[in-house]
Amino acid sequence: MGELAYLNGNYMPIECAKIPVEDRGLQFGDSLYEVIRLYGGAPFRAGGHLERMRAGARVVGLPEDCIDVLPEVVEELARRSGFGDAFVYIQVTRGVCPRIHAFPSGLQPTVIGTVRPFDRLPEELYVEGATAYAEPDIRWGRRDVKATTLLPNILAATRVARKGGYDAVLVEEDGTITEGTVSNLFAVIDGILRTHPVGERILSGITRAAVIEAASNKGVEVLEESFRIQDLDRATELFFTNTYCEVLPVVRVDDHVVGEGAPGPVSRTLLEGFRDIVRRETGSA
Amino acid sequence: MGELAYLNGNYMPIECAKIPVEDRGLQFGDSLYEVIRLYGGAPFRAGGHLERMRAGARVVGLPEDCIDVLPEVVEELARRSGFGDAFVYIQVTRGVCPRIHAFPSGLQPTVIGTVRPFDRLPEELYVEGATAYAEPDIRWGRRDVKATTLLPNILAATRVARKGGYDAVLVEEDGTITEGTVSNLFAVIDGILRTHPVGERILSGITRAAVIEAASNKGVEVLEESFRIQDLDRATELFFTNTYCEVLPVVRVDDHVVGEGAPGPVSRTLLEGFRDIVRRETGSA
Repeated sequence: MGELAYLNGNYMPIECAKIPVEDRGLQFGDSLYEVIRLYGGAPFRAGGHLERMRAGARVVGLPEDCIDVLPEVVEELARRSGFGDAFVYIQVTRGVCPRIHAFPSGLQPTVIGTVRPFDRLPEELYVEGATAYAEPDIRWGRRDVKATTLLPNILAATRVARKGGYDAVLVEEDGTITEGTVSNLFAVIDGILRTHPVGERILSGITRAAVIEAASNKGVEVLEESFRIQDLDRATELFFTNTYCEVLPVVRVDDHVVGEGAPGPVSRTLLEGFRDIVRRETGSA
Repeated sequence: MGELAYLNGNYMPIECAKIPVEDRGLQFGDSLYEVIRLYGGAPFRAGGHLERMRAGARVVGLPEDCIDVLPEVVEELARRSGFGDAFVYIQVTRGVCPRIHAFPSGLQPTVIGTVRPFDRLPEELYVEGATAYAEPDIRWGRRDVKATTLLPNILAATRVARKGGYDAVLVEEDGTITEGTVSNLFAVIDGILRTHPVGERILSGITRAAVIEAASNKGVEVLEESFRIQDLDRATELFFTNTYCEVLPVVRVDDHVVGEGAPGPVSRTLLEGFRDIVRRETGSA
């Protein structure tokens, strides 16, 4: 049936799904979201995405029970769309009320879902490696909460895209690299695979966790310890992980060439390992 | 006629104003807003609000010409509503497109306006003074841009409201007080009236600027220099300024009593001075 939306209990064409202008998601960014990948029509780790949303709901004080309906919504959007490679986007807002900062209790959350097909990234990007650009990390302090307060992300992502890059390398004031605007980041530095530890400074990525599992499966040690922009001088590999790109090697950050300027063995191994996991869990990759 | 909305060229009841779920304002917080006070039906400094929105549009790359219609929208919402004391809320989003972080060029912005009546704060709050609570300032780095990425604001505002406070005193990691979640903040410390300088760390408030003018009119010197939470020990007065409260004395921050625990002469003088300006410009106060 193709692209469609879910809104507060009903399925409909995406263009028919409309929300009131006084929805707090629109007026305050008062909402959480998740993007779930379908492989051959099967959602990959929808449970992990929804658990993360539940954790976010506890932080921001959204009633958790609005998430109870979402496993079925994800399944239904996948089934009704008939898509193989696709994304299910879900968003839960605090609900609708006359504009006031402090939220009243008892609001009825707005629950939104959409499904759209996905064109995989061109294979040559994996063969040649992507370019990234450093951007200051000026996001709010709770990046572990997957909220729609994404303006800093989209501004950085747009600057990078205009230059032909895949994503930003977000750098805090002290030089610490956190992640990308839509990705987590891993680097091989002095022969050790490193990635920023989870906590309030980064999103605890579903793909990130699966890649750490893949590393374990493949006998690659991972150190969850942050690194700085100046450490990239000693990096032999760098790669983004997310639901879209899976494991995407980065061969250049601004003018700096990473390692030999070509995708390295660790990222190749972990992309394979990640796809093994996807194949095992969804029957497709 | 009462409460009503404007949406992309049309006026309608608020509940009829609906936007697509793929509006970037909803999915990314990719939008700017302003809240304009009506006094006796006349907008106060609508031009200043719209200039600030224009400045924000330049920062986030929104086409400025979508703001050109807004002076008329503000006037029309004021006129059609028939309200005396009220607020016009305006919001401009990047527009509607299938979800992608880097925004495509050429999108048609969504332009929203609403008007709702306003109940003034109880007079006793000005007589007795308000309570504030310190909260960590974990907002993004561009607070000068009045964007709808407000989740950190509303979480702090809600915690404060649940405790009976008026607003938060937002404190950065180094102890610097920036402002409130909906207000700018002034303090009299060692006999000098101080407020955080404009720049990327605070919103350049319309009321803040008018209060600085009022101070000049009344012969009160203002130092635009930040202060820290520990400086409040030496503060004899503290007050919030914004479009809702105008000039609201704060007599307690958490358990700390400010000065004598009662509104002081500077805040009283500046509230009068601010209302003089409003009266002069709108014919009402």
